[in-house]
Amino acid sequence: MARRPTLEFWYEFASTYSYLAVMRIEAQAEAAGVSLRWRPFLLGPIFAAQGWNNSPFNIYPAKGRNMWRDLDREAARLSLPPITRPNPFPQNSLSATRVAIYATDQDWLVPFTKAVFETAFANGGSIAEPQAVAAILDRLGLDGGAILKAAASEANKGRLKLAGEEARSRGIYGAPSFLTEDGELFWGNDRLEQALDWAQGNRPGRML
Amino acid sequence: MARRPTLEFWYEFASTYSYLAVMRIEAQAEAAGVSLRWRPFLLGPIFAAQGWNNSPFNIYPAKGRNMWRDLDREAARLSLPPITRPNPFPQNSLSATRVAIYATDQDWLVPFTKAVFETAFANGGSIAEPQAVAAILDRLGLDGGAILKAAASEANKGRLKLAGEEARSRGIYGAPSFLTEDGELFWGNDRLEQALDWAQGNRPGRML
Repeated sequence: MARRPTLEFWYEFASTYSYLAVMRIEAQAEAAGVSLRWRPFLLGPIFAAQGWNNSPFNIYPAKGRNMWRDLDREAARLSLPPITRPNPFPQNSLSATRVAIYATDQDWLVPFTKAVFETAFANGGSIAEPQAVAAILDRLGLDGGAILKAAASEANKGRLKLAGEEARSRGIYGAPSFLTEDGELFWGNDRLEQALDWAQGNRPGRML
Repeated sequence: MARRPTLEFWYEFASTYSYLAVMRIEAQAEAAGVSLRWRPFLLGPIFAAQGWNNSPFNIYPAKGRNMWRDLDREAARLSLPPITRPNPFPQNSLSATRVAIYATDQDWLVPFTKAVFETAFANGGSIAEPQAVAAILDRLGLDGGAILKAAASEANKGRLKLAGEEARSRGIYGAPSFLTEDGELFWGNDRLEQALDWAQGNRPGRML
């Protein structure tokens, strides 16, 4: 059998455009014949390193207003439910991200990821408190309490930190981001198609 | 005859993604049956008001590195010539913008605009000095010296300032931006298609 190319999908649970990407990437990747590697990470430390202690959508109000409007429009265009705006925004994503890192290579990573994003951006729920994350796990038929506890281990916290350092060292500065096997970085939900094209070996019209 | 909808196209001569939009907007608008109103403006004062005294692509190096790479890829995808990176970046766009404001409703606004962007991003030329702008005008068969002088009048400087204030009051925070007749704001070259759809009356799947 031919080897399918792989695309790494880096996402942050508090990120609005990560939500749009999460809801459409599986169908797009399947159609392109590309395998996905789901890479949860925390954007907070990367933002902090460049001097932001908040979302740029809060720091720059005009940008934030248009982002929410754009998110409404894009969700409608993608036939997603109306957007619910997390309150507060951004949500603290530490507990959910610890769990997602703990779920690396587990078959429940993708259903868990989608459930967290849907809770935050379609169902108007909180994802910030550990109990909220445990409840999402319980609804998936998993043992939320036990998983939360395991995800808070020092070993798992170390893996989370390592993922953040890897993101930064590979040039990631926002979410969602897509990384091909040859290290090409694409930033933003709007670049999903281009990233899949690149992963398939379809480079733009001339050698870059 | 049916009335064609109009889309306002706000652009900044120093802006990389304004270049991509400039090079493709005419064909896209024609295909959509939408008239364009070309609105040059200076982004500098808007950036300064939010605390930036430089391009965010310079302030945040990881973002800047990926922007240049993305610009290379997108230019290739759009079959544009290889990108030449203005040095320094961003170019001082004051003289060119004064001339473009002076050219409002003149039939040479669009050819002048395209020539400035091509000089900066395809031909590796400077657009910063008044003489460089005059030379571009001369090459279009216009009287560069006389136009530069008229564009530096107090009346024209007032119009330029007014355009910037209008941009900010209508929610613009970056370039390119697109504004529909009913005030819907779309930011970025990636939103040209959505803006033209909206201008045509095609709203996303449900009432927003």
